[in-house]
Amino acid sequence: MRIIRYVEGNGQPHSGVLADGTVYELVGGWENPSAGRRRAAEADIQLLNPCTPGIIICAGGNYRSQLAELGKPVPNEPPIFLKGINTLAGPGDAILHPRELDRLEYEGELAVVLGRTARNVRAADYRDYVLGYTCANDVTASNWRADGQWTRAKSLDTFCPMGPWIETAISGESLRLQTRLNSETVQDCQTSDMVFGVGELLEWITRWITLQPGDVLLTASPAGVGQMKPGDTVEVEVAGIGVLTNTVAWRT
Amino acid sequence: MRIIRYVEGNGQPHSGVLADGTVYELVGGWENPSAGRRRAAEADIQLLNPCTPGIIICAGGNYRSQLAELGKPVPNEPPIFLKGINTLAGPGDAILHPRELDRLEYEGELAVVLGRTARNVRAADYRDYVLGYTCANDVTASNWRADGQWTRAKSLDTFCPMGPWIETAISGESLRLQTRLNSETVQDCQTSDMVFGVGELLEWITRWITLQPGDVLLTASPAGVGQMKPGDTVEVEVAGIGVLTNTVAWRT
Repeated sequence: MRIIRYVEGNGQPHSGVLADGTVYELVGGWENPSAGRRRAAEADIQLLNPCTPGIIICAGGNYRSQLAELGKPVPNEPPIFLKGINTLAGPGDAILHPRELDRLEYEGELAVVLGRTARNVRAADYRDYVLGYTCANDVTASNWRADGQWTRAKSLDTFCPMGPWIETAISGESLRLQTRLNSETVQDCQTSDMVFGVGELLEWITRWITLQPGDVLLTASPAGVGQMKPGDTVEVEVAGIGVLTNTVAWRT
Repeated sequence: MRIIRYVEGNGQPHSGVLADGTVYELVGGWENPSAGRRRAAEADIQLLNPCTPGIIICAGGNYRSQLAELGKPVPNEPPIFLKGINTLAGPGDAILHPRELDRLEYEGELAVVLGRTARNVRAADYRDYVLGYTCANDVTASNWRADGQWTRAKSLDTFCPMGPWIETAISGESLRLQTRLNSETVQDCQTSDMVFGVGELLEWITRWITLQPGDVLLTASPAGVGQMKPGDTVEVEVAGIGVLTNTVAWRT
């Protein structure tokens, strides 16, 4: 099932279920979602980021291909960091490039959306807490990593596009993840290349941080991270989910 | 005016205005708050964290007294980091100490609560964007700073107690800030000792990060940061606001 957030015309944002070109009401909430009555035709709506997390928690350095590319050792514990909710952006939204910044980078990622309150999760039970998966771009102001803390590198407005929807009918363990920059493939991997899988990440994080329904875990980016410039189009595709497309524009 | 969030009995959380031992309805929202009809006696309510931010953005290393204590240079730009909203706790709530952690620390701070959407704020205009001020404790798992990114050091559940209320009738520029551990004063300074004042911090942050009404800025802690252990009581007092009191307990 594809869970979306959308607007129709000048209306308010709604959650819904998308199937066969039609938008249905989302009934049963995050814990037991299903499709209700017809609400709109897909052609008449605009997709938004598919959920509104309170917390966006992110893993770093979690793909063996990226660690090898950078010559870094495999970590013993999952490195984690936060993005603020000001970073949220939807399919088609512009990623805003600050004029003072030298280098903006895409990082295509698999995003996990929580369906239940998650505290002290055991890795083996993680599926009980996951609503589904979507595509995300962990946009990074790479030269501002030098701040030490990555808030200015990772947490600027529009630095977390997500979408196009939450797919609930798949498992995240072995999916092909690709990023394309102006139609050229620049990242291409399987999510099975992660050092810490989704279950291990959720076990580690929820020992410390209680996650709520709708919260999001970004699972890190594989080899091939690179620069985006204003005017560029970037697509993140996860097989079994879909394609998240955004363009880059100057921030004013 | 003192703006509170509270529950009465088993009811739902409400915002309100506290005056002379009486709780009044909050009317006019964050932009033009005032007291409406009587809702309850102060004796019959329990205070909660006084707002529910979407973003908790924090300055680090921003008091000359602390920089001197640590032998660190005065930074050229404000170091910033995030705490997740899972860290929120109210007056009287327990701060949870993980059993795996060697050293938990208090950091008494002045917290700024936004009243309007803040983007590209000029330092001289910052008062237009501030609803008021409250006390906060930027609780820190100090040995987990070694993670590099401070998410596990700063963003565990209950690591951001705030309260007891938002005081709207003061300016934050020169207030006495004290922290007491088991009734002994361990931090004592004036907020005028900040390297970057509230206006400069908001100018820097909102160049990158749009803040919304109810979002919170923690302005960093002065000299005297130290350890808390389960069973301890910690109080953060800001003159003109009040006292935020919490106890420390083991996390289970």
